Amino acid sequence: MPSTKAYASKSATSPLAPHTINRRDPGLHDVQIEILYCGICHSDLHTARNEWGNTTYPCVPGHEIVGKVTAVGDHVKKFRVGDHAGVGCLVDSCRECDNCRDGLEQYCSNGMVGTYNGMEKDGSGYTYGGYSKSITVHEDFVLHISDKLPLDGAAPLLCAGITTFSPLRHWKVGKGTKVGVLGLGGLGHMGVKLAVAMGAEVTMLSHTASKEKDANRLGAHKFVLTSDTEQVNAVKGYFDFILDTVSADHDYNFYLGLLHTSGVMVCVGAPSSPAVVPAFNLIFGRKSIAGSLIGGLPETQEMLDFCAAHNIVSDIEVIAIKDINESYERMLKGDVRYRFVIDMATL
Amino acid sequence: MPSTKAYASKSATSPLAPHTINRRDPGLHDVQIEILYCGICHSDLHTARNEWGNTTYPCVPGHEIVGKVTAVGDHVKKFRVGDHAGVGCLVDSCRECDNCRDGLEQYCSNGMVGTYNGMEKDGSGYTYGGYSKSITVHEDFVLHISDKLPLDGAAPLLCAGITTFSPLRHWKVGKGTKVGVLGLGGLGHMGVKLAVAMGAEVTMLSHTASKEKDANRLGAHKFVLTSDTEQVNAVKGYFDFILDTVSADHDYNFYLGLLHTSGVMVCVGAPSSPAVVPAFNLIFGRKSIAGSLIGGLPETQEMLDFCAAHNIVSDIEVIAIKDINESYERMLKGDVRYRFVIDMATL
Repeated sequence: MPSTKAYASKSATSPLAPHTINRRDPGLHDVQIEILYCGICHSDLHTARNEWGNTTYPCVPGHEIVGKVTAVGDHVKKFRVGDHAGVGCLVDSCRECDNCRDGLEQYCSNGMVGTYNGMEKDGSGYTYGGYSKSITVHEDFVLHISDKLPLDGAAPLLCAGITTFSPLRHWKVGKGTKVGVLGLGGLGHMGVKLAVAMGAEVTMLSHTASKEKDANRLGAHKFVLTSDTEQVNAVKGYFDFILDTVSADHDYNFYLGLLHTSGVMVCVGAPSSPAVVPAFNLIFGRKSIAGSLIGGLPETQEMLDFCAAHNIVSDIEVIAIKDINESYERMLKGDVRYRFVIDMATL
Repeated sequence: MPSTKAYASKSATSPLAPHTINRRDPGLHDVQIEILYCGICHSDLHTARNEWGNTTYPCVPGHEIVGKVTAVGDHVKKFRVGDHAGVGCLVDSCRECDNCRDGLEQYCSNGMVGTYNGMEKDGSGYTYGGYSKSITVHEDFVLHISDKLPLDGAAPLLCAGITTFSPLRHWKVGKGTKVGVLGLGGLGHMGVKLAVAMGAEVTMLSHTASKEKDANRLGAHKFVLTSDTEQVNAVKGYFDFILDTVSADHDYNFYLGLLHTSGVMVCVGAPSSPAVVPAFNLIFGRKSIAGSLIGGLPETQEMLDFCAAHNIVSDIEVIAIKDINESYERMLKGDVRYRFVIDMATL
């Protein structure tokens, strides 16, 4: 059981601090990865602070993990020592239910195992995430990262990337699709880049005028300031697809009004208040509200390969791990463009 | 301007009573229809009593119209005198917007003209519906009714039939689809018949045990009593598609829990209270809530032809028009299996 340096929170109110965890020795099917970079997702903060009420301490967050393979089990076929590899939001699932068989492990009927704060399938303990020097994961839950991609910028693809890629693919966004992206943060900026690369016409929807410049730089074709009635009226009934990345409370009906006939609004952010939607707002125009959760393993690999082919990574600010608590505070204020990534050499 | 016998309400609180209206002489593209039967839709009652706040009086309801063609304009190509014909919920639209061009006239961007209580496109007045001896409609908004179908049972297909057919088709319900139908009324009983005919496995979801027998008779393969925890647990995560025909307030989350991964719940009933749905209930399982409004003209014809091919009509109780007000009261109590149809010979 190799002991491994990590950063952990020990209670809902403790700052993250140095900690030592034990990782298992690689089993026959395991891949051991030296973690080089780990992105910081808002879920890390929610979990570290027990905001979802289900955290087990000590808690080592981090599920946007990239690094180098340092050892493989005897039966591992897909990875070799030295490969660049990634681990996303899940490290195991039942592999037997129809969702797992369909490559939708994130919806495993028997419960997927989260990369952190998840109970191992064999009941041996809770999982520890990527704020650590290394991780050991069954090869089925490890992803290949192309050498073309810079590892630091690639880290957030493992959560922010797949969370936006999966609904764009599922609802067949492509050439000719008019896409609105709501919210320009870690998820939204990936949504813009990916939808543009898929050939869609992409409009950034924001209530902050100053974001227009950045939206354009990211590739958005249009920008609509949602506080400007004239601009909003011009896109009523316009969009085929709206990717809603906002986690703050907002009025879904406002955005449903911007959908064209048969349009779909997909929520990947989960505000604390529920959506309140009169059925008539769905009935007139055959509109849908849907949700989507990260992505399965095959689709995550597809996303990483797509990003390598299109030179897409996240816009990041690399930090030293000693600055993690300050980064959390800045993330809460939206002061990050658009993802913090921890350089694990600083641990 | 031929004067035509009808039944009308003259205010929100007046019972429906005999009335005389003027219909236009058939124009070059018009079809004049002697109305033989007209179904009674709950919308008729809502409008007669101004429950949606937009009724113009006198109001002649009725948009499930079938009868015989008695005259055609010189340029009419699709109908001949003597043909069986039907008129549904709309009698005109702009014909120019992309929805109209796509055969989705019910979503006309410039506003479709309802068969009653609608303003004619030329501004000449409000439309009068099917509680009358005849109607004159542009041939583009008239449907063919196969001689194979009994006209009285066919009348409700023009609204209840197409309202349930359209979402089943749009979301590609067919062999292998596990369909739940929520609500066994005018819409729900058509939903069961149509989904069964499309080859789906159909389950009736009801909180009334006594409806099981009827559900079976209509062709449902399964029945789930939604007040029975054991029965409900057995279908958690089970359905690919739920057709929600209920207009009374209900908890959408309960039914979202019965959807399988990527499942869709489509609302065709509009309760007075909005849906209140936490985003997590959509995100976990990639679920959708959608709405759907009747159907366009091409799809309505497709539905009528499908019903003729599969010998599908509505289960009806034929009434004399003098009993219309009593029928409204019975409809409010759910005392109809499953649609009242007025025999216009009684007018």
